[in-house]
Amino acid sequence: MGANPEGLSLNLATTRQQWDMRQAVEACVRHGVTAISPWRDQIAAIGLDEAVRIVRANGMRLTGVCRGGMFPAADKAGRAAALDDNRRAIDEAAALGADCLVLVAGGLPRGSKDIAGARDMVAEGILAILPHARASGVPLAIEPLHPMYAADRACVNTLRHALDICEAAGEGVGVAIDVYHVWWDPELAEQIARAGRMGRILAHHICDWLVPTRDLLLDRGMMGDGVIDLRGIRRMIEAAGFRGPQEVEIFSSQDWWTRPGEEVLRTCIERHDTLCRA
Amino acid sequence: MGANPEGLSLNLATTRQQWDMRQAVEACVRHGVTAISPWRDQIAAIGLDEAVRIVRANGMRLTGVCRGGMFPAADKAGRAAALDDNRRAIDEAAALGADCLVLVAGGLPRGSKDIAGARDMVAEGILAILPHARASGVPLAIEPLHPMYAADRACVNTLRHALDICEAAGEGVGVAIDVYHVWWDPELAEQIARAGRMGRILAHHICDWLVPTRDLLLDRGMMGDGVIDLRGIRRMIEAAGFRGPQEVEIFSSQDWWTRPGEEVLRTCIERHDTLCRA
Repeated sequence: MGANPEGLSLNLATTRQQWDMRQAVEACVRHGVTAISPWRDQIAAIGLDEAVRIVRANGMRLTGVCRGGMFPAADKAGRAAALDDNRRAIDEAAALGADCLVLVAGGLPRGSKDIAGARDMVAEGILAILPHARASGVPLAIEPLHPMYAADRACVNTLRHALDICEAAGEGVGVAIDVYHVWWDPELAEQIARAGRMGRILAHHICDWLVPTRDLLLDRGMMGDGVIDLRGIRRMIEAAGFRGPQEVEIFSSQDWWTRPGEEVLRTCIERHDTLCRA
Repeated sequence: MGANPEGLSLNLATTRQQWDMRQAVEACVRHGVTAISPWRDQIAAIGLDEAVRIVRANGMRLTGVCRGGMFPAADKAGRAAALDDNRRAIDEAAALGADCLVLVAGGLPRGSKDIAGARDMVAEGILAILPHARASGVPLAIEPLHPMYAADRACVNTLRHALDICEAAGEGVGVAIDVYHVWWDPELAEQIARAGRMGRILAHHICDWLVPTRDLLLDRGMMGDGVIDLRGIRRMIEAAGFRGPQEVEIFSSQDWWTRPGEEVLRTCIERHDTLCRA
């Protein structure tokens, strides 16, 4: 009896070094995994049309497209270019029928120490692309990133902050809750419940926090190998009304990216089945 | 004309690889720095009596002793041992006439995924040592650590959480505000103002957040080399009523720990004088 893959989505960053999008979908089909979340460079590598064809031919659910965002820039031209790129990302997510476009806010513009200013640029950027997202039927999912990425990747670092932006922006914007980024937050239970009341939970990403963590970006752990209470957080998220797939997203340059893709996917399925269900 | 060392304190971790406590005090005297903050292992290395003698003979202000805390443990015996060690740390801080004993909360007990439980152990531990701290005239300074240390060093990760603990515990407990740990917090201004209203700011530590940061623990930057708005945060802290020294605390295994101590101290003084004053 194999582990049950139901309710699992594979974020294709997890097998980025092993498989392209086509190979990843084929592997998912073999293992009974019916949901994925591709990155834009992976879509571009095989072409959007082919990506759409593969997704439809295999009846894949897309729990998200990674990623839009990266709004702050040192000048107006840079900010406008970011908006254009986000509109293209929305078009891709629409063509693929994705549940949402994941937004990673972006960090400080080069040379800036003004994090409040960067945060304003994020809120403004989201407002600017929101009409196109709504017209395209693509929900935007703000993913608060761990505070250790505040400078260079995302200046939205708590669920509370992300939900404040959602509230101000109105319909069409929600949150992607990645346990890696939020597990430490003393307000986690409260803010997940708030997200549920607002009806804004669009995605749930899983992996684990390793002790020690050897690299700020590329040392995420497989579920069960770290300290995150995955089952407990899933319970909070289901109690808040979200029952969509748990999407495994693991960046692991020294470990999981070096193993055969089959082993990685099989391990994801087993760990999700035994450790992550509510 | 040299830079003005007034208002600067040297946390002796900054020159840990170059100087013992005696050498560090001698260097501070040469440079006109009148405040330090030693670590307990540095005190132990020369003996508490000798440390007290050196501090008094040179009229040094101690902006803190690093550190107590580390309350969570897997069993009762471990938690009791932590309390005993904290009481000894209080005695040392009292003997040295330090402004405060810095508390680093401690992370998850081995094998635990229960961060809420660990946080309860921290609050209980502080309540347990508080009578001895009050009787000894040693204020306890909870230092919220960056969320990237939540698992293994400190499960108190925001100023808000630290102040909630202070509020519950009553007089004799405040906070040490280290810019490295809190600069990213969207509630920083609000919580610094709250700390001021509560009269609980006991220490202000400085360094900088480098981009990229190559190591979670030992890659702190010299003031001015990173992205933290040091002057802006100092303004908030002074507006909240704290005008004590800014204590430079830099762990830097690949850079500042490899340079001559004189160069490090001179650079601290220059950067503080030109970049950190309100």
